[in-house]
Amino acid sequence: MSKNKRPLVFITNDDGIYAKGLNELIKGFRKIGEIVVVAPEGARSGMSGAITSLNPVRIDLLRKEEDLTIYSCSGTPVDCVKLGVNSIVSRKPDLLVAGINHGSNAAVCVIYSGTIGATLEGCIIGIPSMGVSLTDHSPNADFSQAVKYGKLVAEKVLLEGLPKGICLNLNVPSISDVKGLKICTQTKGNWQEKIEKLKDPYDRVIYWLGGEFANEEPENTCCDEWALSKGYAALVPLQVDMTAHYFYELWKKKWEFCTESNL
Amino acid sequence: MSKNKRPLVFITNDDGIYAKGLNELIKGFRKIGEIVVVAPEGARSGMSGAITSLNPVRIDLLRKEEDLTIYSCSGTPVDCVKLGVNSIVSRKPDLLVAGINHGSNAAVCVIYSGTIGATLEGCIIGIPSMGVSLTDHSPNADFSQAVKYGKLVAEKVLLEGLPKGICLNLNVPSISDVKGLKICTQTKGNWQEKIEKLKDPYDRVIYWLGGEFANEEPENTCCDEWALSKGYAALVPLQVDMTAHYFYELWKKKWEFCTESNL
Repeated sequence: MSKNKRPLVFITNDDGIYAKGLNELIKGFRKIGEIVVVAPEGARSGMSGAITSLNPVRIDLLRKEEDLTIYSCSGTPVDCVKLGVNSIVSRKPDLLVAGINHGSNAAVCVIYSGTIGATLEGCIIGIPSMGVSLTDHSPNADFSQAVKYGKLVAEKVLLEGLPKGICLNLNVPSISDVKGLKICTQTKGNWQEKIEKLKDPYDRVIYWLGGEFANEEPENTCCDEWALSKGYAALVPLQVDMTAHYFYELWKKKWEFCTESNL
Repeated sequence: MSKNKRPLVFITNDDGIYAKGLNELIKGFRKIGEIVVVAPEGARSGMSGAITSLNPVRIDLLRKEEDLTIYSCSGTPVDCVKLGVNSIVSRKPDLLVAGINHGSNAAVCVIYSGTIGATLEGCIIGIPSMGVSLTDHSPNADFSQAVKYGKLVAEKVLLEGLPKGICLNLNVPSISDVKGLKICTQTKGNWQEKIEKLKDPYDRVIYWLGGEFANEEPENTCCDEWALSKGYAALVPLQVDMTAHYFYELWKKKWEFCTESNL
């Protein structure tokens, strides 16, 4: 961080520029530093790490005042980060915060979440990055606890930085008396699909995706889902490296056809 | 796998139903088992693990013959897997193969790739899953080596299965004399953005995303990029669990505010 400047905080989300969670985050973080927001013009939930490569992307300046600039972007959350950091900000952000998401991004949601997609992108391009989510989907949810814990973590990250290739996934339970913060692991589980087969107004078959999270380790006190269920904010350190290192070590010795001579 | 039936192989991709890579994969894999294809109706590159939740998704039957059924889907690669496995196939697939992608999905591409998004989805829902990619973007690339190595890996996976939460990312170099297969780690690196700022025909500013991969460990002989550059097919075991376990262990002891009493 430059010594003479306030920290530059880059903010994005996947619920879109008008979401309450984003605007509460902006309000809460204005004291921390200079804010630049580049967020999708509309809802981009479930966009994961998607990037727009076959179409152009547009950015519009919505608001500019001292230490706060807000842009909307036609692309995905990752597009917002790529474009914002490369073409909008005048210096490298000291911190990237994605959120506050309306709805949990705990457990396997990290794979599907646009909030986490943006967080991973910040991490990949070398910015200390964190996603913040509240376990409440409603448009008018109370984000005060999520802002409080988000700031707590953000201030630590601004002070200490994050290791290369590591970012943070913070989920905050939607209760007024959050008990504290726990460092957690990503809960194992999957979405039990409940796919609705319907007809459109012209009698053509359509499918609507939906489902419920099936927790495969509900008793594991290390897990983010457990912490949330007990009233704690859950902080999971995530890594960009998806290599299963244990099996890499095992298989490079064991898979017998892995040499030129055997093929 | 059922004893009396041929293995059921579920195939999808992110280049769309008419891509050569998909069709070469289908041809090559027909001897292995019964094939069900659910693939996007058009290009879905860079869609990562994106899911469609705000809109309906449509599926159309394109072709049905003995042991081969092909559907196109209006959604993302992950939608294809979710819908296909839940609403189309009559039994759980014994193997999911995504690809063959036109272009590499090595290194950090796992974060952005629709091919890997589909592969991870198969893994999450408990199907032994693998993504296959060729390091050649051209529509008429020669997929013979990618099919050969894909089958080699697929046959091993059908025989032995894969550990829970682990899937495979196979990249094959676009050369006629691939030297063999190496088990690898995901190369560290990032995309150096080259964002084009242009004008649309109505004189409005548009941005076009693009870039080049910057390899942060070009000399590391464990990495998939190294293997590909030396003429080997590169197989990386990937895990759905993105927890940075080392930092989880470190921080849960060190981050002093992680107890109720300190808040």
